[in-house]
Amino acid sequence: MTGLFISFEGGDGTGKTTQIARLAEHLRAEGAEVVTTREPGGTELGREIRQALLHGEDLSPRTEALLYSADRAHHVATVIRPALDRGATVITDRFVDSSVAYQGSARELGIDEIRSLNDWAVGGLVPDLTFLLDLDPAVGAARLNREKDRLESAGDDFHRQVRQTFLEMAEAEPDRFVVIDASRSIDEIAADVRAGYERLR
Amino acid sequence: MTGLFISFEGGDGTGKTTQIARLAEHLRAEGAEVVTTREPGGTELGREIRQALLHGEDLSPRTEALLYSADRAHHVATVIRPALDRGATVITDRFVDSSVAYQGSARELGIDEIRSLNDWAVGGLVPDLTFLLDLDPAVGAARLNREKDRLESAGDDFHRQVRQTFLEMAEAEPDRFVVIDASRSIDEIAADVRAGYERLR
Repeated sequence: MTGLFISFEGGDGTGKTTQIARLAEHLRAEGAEVVTTREPGGTELGREIRQALLHGEDLSPRTEALLYSADRAHHVATVIRPALDRGATVITDRFVDSSVAYQGSARELGIDEIRSLNDWAVGGLVPDLTFLLDLDPAVGAARLNREKDRLESAGDDFHRQVRQTFLEMAEAEPDRFVVIDASRSIDEIAADVRAGYERLR
Repeated sequence: MTGLFISFEGGDGTGKTTQIARLAEHLRAEGAEVVTTREPGGTELGREIRQALLHGEDLSPRTEALLYSADRAHHVATVIRPALDRGATVITDRFVDSSVAYQGSARELGIDEIRSLNDWAVGGLVPDLTFLLDLDPAVGAARLNREKDRLESAGDDFHRQVRQTFLEMAEAEPDRFVVIDASRSIDEIAADVRAGYERLR
């Protein structure tokens, strides 16, 4: 039996971390084994890559896309696949859709190129369910009170384009995506997440 | 004017480092600007990636292939392209062919997949001239007196397969490849390299 694979997507400051913790807590209370993880940075190699990506020297768009997909390939091989294979529910903070939105759309690379690069990296693994926490980037930015890293400090147009690309992906795959208005309270969002999850069963 | 782009390929212990130094010295004496570099490890990011690849945790074949191609994308963007654009001759110790031989053939991934991944990474850049230093892997291994790293310590069958794949690539692209018998003396090999280079002009 293969476990459920769930991803959370959306810009920074949309509350993904909080909602993942809430959903995991709920599922664990029901007796499920739940593995929560994140990209980039879900493995030791991933943390090294994350350092290089966010704080290192200036990287070309292709280099950046390849590093994210290397992180993802390793993350799938060492964390996600083994957990799914033993029947655990895996919840990841970002997956392939983030690369498509960030590198494929808002940077100079094409969406199709980034999608196929990443599909190759993960051996075709697709989440059973993807929660898109949708929020005006200006509101998300105001919520962030930590120092901005390189991606977060990219311009407003960039973040609006990312949001738009996420919404288009959700529209194209309505069976996989659940779009949630993340401007509301944590409890309201958590209730929508739980309802979206129930839809799966 | 774009500079000449030359790669050296072949197994470990075939003398690439020595021959690159000899060719560079010769071309500099003729007044050329020569940039010598290597993969992986030609940039600071590359050196970090090299550490992860050769001494880190166990990596899946796709992760490894993506890390090599990320290194290569960065290497091309920051070292090779700028040098070629100002008219310098660039000599690199390994390029795309190494990935095709090592990851594409001897590992579980397909040659075509690795070739297309890497062609994407480098934006289609192909060397003007590639020297394949060909040697029985057992002889190459005996020449290496430093501690073996992870790739070098893979089995004999692996290294025989790599050699075979290099030779097949050379046969498929006779205008780009010069195959050199690397079992001979440094001077004999250097003379063949120089003759191969002269053919270009």
